[in-house]
Amino acid sequence: MAAPHSTVDRARSAERIERDIETLAGPEYTRSDEAIRRYAYTPEYRATLDYFVRELEALGFEISYDPVGTLVARNRPAGEPAFGVGSHCDSNRNGGKYDGTMGVVTALEVCRLNAELGLDLPLQLISFLEEEGSGFGQMLLGSRITAQRVTDEELKEQFRSIDDGRSFWEHAEEAGYEPARWRESIGILDGLTGWIELHIEQARVLQDTGNRLGIVTAIAGYIHADVFIEGRADHAGATPMDFRLDAAPVAARVILEVERLAREAGEGTVGTVGEVEFQPGIINVVPGRARLSLDTRGVVEEGFQAVARGIESFAQEAAAERGLTASYGQRQTLPVTRMDERLVAALGQAAGQTGEPFMLMPSGAAHDTMSVADRVPSAMVFVPCRDGISHAPEEEADPADAALGAEVILAAVASLHAAG
Amino acid sequence: MAAPHSTVDRARSAERIERDIETLAGPEYTRSDEAIRRYAYTPEYRATLDYFVRELEALGFEISYDPVGTLVARNRPAGEPAFGVGSHCDSNRNGGKYDGTMGVVTALEVCRLNAELGLDLPLQLISFLEEEGSGFGQMLLGSRITAQRVTDEELKEQFRSIDDGRSFWEHAEEAGYEPARWRESIGILDGLTGWIELHIEQARVLQDTGNRLGIVTAIAGYIHADVFIEGRADHAGATPMDFRLDAAPVAARVILEVERLAREAGEGTVGTVGEVEFQPGIINVVPGRARLSLDTRGVVEEGFQAVARGIESFAQEAAAERGLTASYGQRQTLPVTRMDERLVAALGQAAGQTGEPFMLMPSGAAHDTMSVADRVPSAMVFVPCRDGISHAPEEEADPADAALGAEVILAAVASLHAAG
Repeated sequence: MAAPHSTVDRARSAERIERDIETLAGPEYTRSDEAIRRYAYTPEYRATLDYFVRELEALGFEISYDPVGTLVARNRPAGEPAFGVGSHCDSNRNGGKYDGTMGVVTALEVCRLNAELGLDLPLQLISFLEEEGSGFGQMLLGSRITAQRVTDEELKEQFRSIDDGRSFWEHAEEAGYEPARWRESIGILDGLTGWIELHIEQARVLQDTGNRLGIVTAIAGYIHADVFIEGRADHAGATPMDFRLDAAPVAARVILEVERLAREAGEGTVGTVGEVEFQPGIINVVPGRARLSLDTRGVVEEGFQAVARGIESFAQEAAAERGLTASYGQRQTLPVTRMDERLVAALGQAAGQTGEPFMLMPSGAAHDTMSVADRVPSAMVFVPCRDGISHAPEEEADPADAALGAEVILAAVASLHAAG
Repeated sequence: MAAPHSTVDRARSAERIERDIETLAGPEYTRSDEAIRRYAYTPEYRATLDYFVRELEALGFEISYDPVGTLVARNRPAGEPAFGVGSHCDSNRNGGKYDGTMGVVTALEVCRLNAELGLDLPLQLISFLEEEGSGFGQMLLGSRITAQRVTDEELKEQFRSIDDGRSFWEHAEEAGYEPARWRESIGILDGLTGWIELHIEQARVLQDTGNRLGIVTAIAGYIHADVFIEGRADHAGATPMDFRLDAAPVAARVILEVERLAREAGEGTVGTVGEVEFQPGIINVVPGRARLSLDTRGVVEEGFQAVARGIESFAQEAAAERGLTASYGQRQTLPVTRMDERLVAALGQAAGQTGEPFMLMPSGAAHDTMSVADRVPSAMVFVPCRDGISHAPEEEADPADAALGAEVILAAVASLHAAG
């Protein structure tokens, strides 16, 4: 089958994508006047799903849901092979119009182009539930349920609504779903021959390098941890410098070391101290305790692992040098998710044929694709977002870039389908 | 007049001081079961003043109050010269038994010894109101009123009760005082030939050097300020190290520089970063903003001034080097308060005659004596507190040290009185 580039009307795609995005930014689709705020089991989230349902039914797609409410739409009967496209359409509590939603809208545009161009490729659109964690404080929740990366106990007891404290389970049942059957969610990946998710980049690399598309080669693995420093709180006026066990300078050295180690690890490894806490946290008291968060990531496992190991031992040595102690506690870790080489190659070839600037790049952020990639050959496409801003009402992305993305995804799926 | 050392029964003084302290730690005198918590215009504070009133009236002292409730007791008619002794008997909200109260109790013991030994030195005891700021969030409030370091506007509008938000003025009136006459408070210093305050040290220097008394040579001046660092918040996973304007490493360098500059200034200069704040303060977001507090003090004006100036310029340079900006905002500053040389010498001589270890030392902490020293020759005596802990229920000090302090203060007052 020939690549459809020559026949795609990019301007029309961009218009449709913009219309979808702007419609879904209307008052019916957000719980806030000042931001996009939608999350599972709210009327605004339901309205958003219904919008996609109407558009997809108009294209002849068959609609279904997994047992907790992840939307699935297919242009082939269940059981037959299809290629997966999609993302999530929930938002951050103080979110923007593009994060997630632009991925589902672009997937919808892929389905539209597929029909319009008469390609009739077998497609399955998925809109995962609760990627942002705005409803229950759990990131990637819908796709983790699909990937069986949760437990009964978590869904019944631990994951609770930020709004009212009731369990995810209770809310899912109330919304008409069957959380007791959550293990069947994995079935939505059955028969998928591949999976491609488009998402805004959430950083400035595409903008600053002048590229319109990024083809993701791997999604960074990460370690989230805390460093605790224990000294002694003392009166800031009455305690001479040599009599102190001040947690602040030790914390400061750890912050600088996170940066040094991440740079030393190279290969895109990053390290961030985003949270800091001094105790008692009063201007006139020498801090007796400090806590720092560590977020280190990369697409080279050994890189971010080395940062975490390095920080654990550095903190202990830096504390001990001054008579303090330090400890390290890991919160969470996730390994690197490699994108499928065949899909990456197909996307690269399709992007090359558009004549538009694109690059291969890692994803530093986590995405639902991490939950899919174990079972289905997967890839992602990034589009630039202005100044790298995301998770904020100021978020901005260009529908024309998403239209280009839709064209490239469709072309890649077509070439993969043709190759069998 | 001979020094009274030979005739003082230190053990009995210690017993009386201990009894006073323990009585005033009873349930009638604190608003908390777990700490000493008393502040102006509460029943517990009133009960504490009444305890002193009873003890002092038994010694033949005449009781009065300044227009806002600072307690004054004299063994001479108003108008006649007298030597001032005292401190404050309010506490931190989560305070201990000794901070402040031990100073008033020791002043009471000086009055007792003066009577018992038949010295009949002219004495005036003062217990200042609201040193800790627990009632209205204003440190040294009572003595600042005496020193005329407040305004009508502050007392009527700005200084408000932490408990109910009503003004200091309203509370003072309700307690039966006449805040409209606050300017007359300065009269309580009229005729004072000197002023000595005993206080717990609130640091570890006396304990760690094995001294039982510290004779204060100067009370540190200080600067309180904030350093604001402005970069850019970015996704911690998606933003490569070289694309960041991370406020955290700049903040870290400022913290280390505060310590370096304080040590470089020497002569007892101290510098502390007690408060730190990263924004948005989330593990997976590169901090776009940071705020650090600066507390720098010392008894050498040029020392702490140099730390503050140094930090202002260092922060700006360290930020600019990485493309961020920094600004510096001063909250408050107070100059060094020198103790009176003649009083310090008299205390030193009296302490030497006891044969007990003592030292001359600066006070890093602020005290009511700062409000008195402009008008009255003033000095302070410190006693050790265990591990330097203060402002906490774990606060501990030895009544025997306070008894030694009472003896030394009495001897110094006697020698100054004899010298005329």
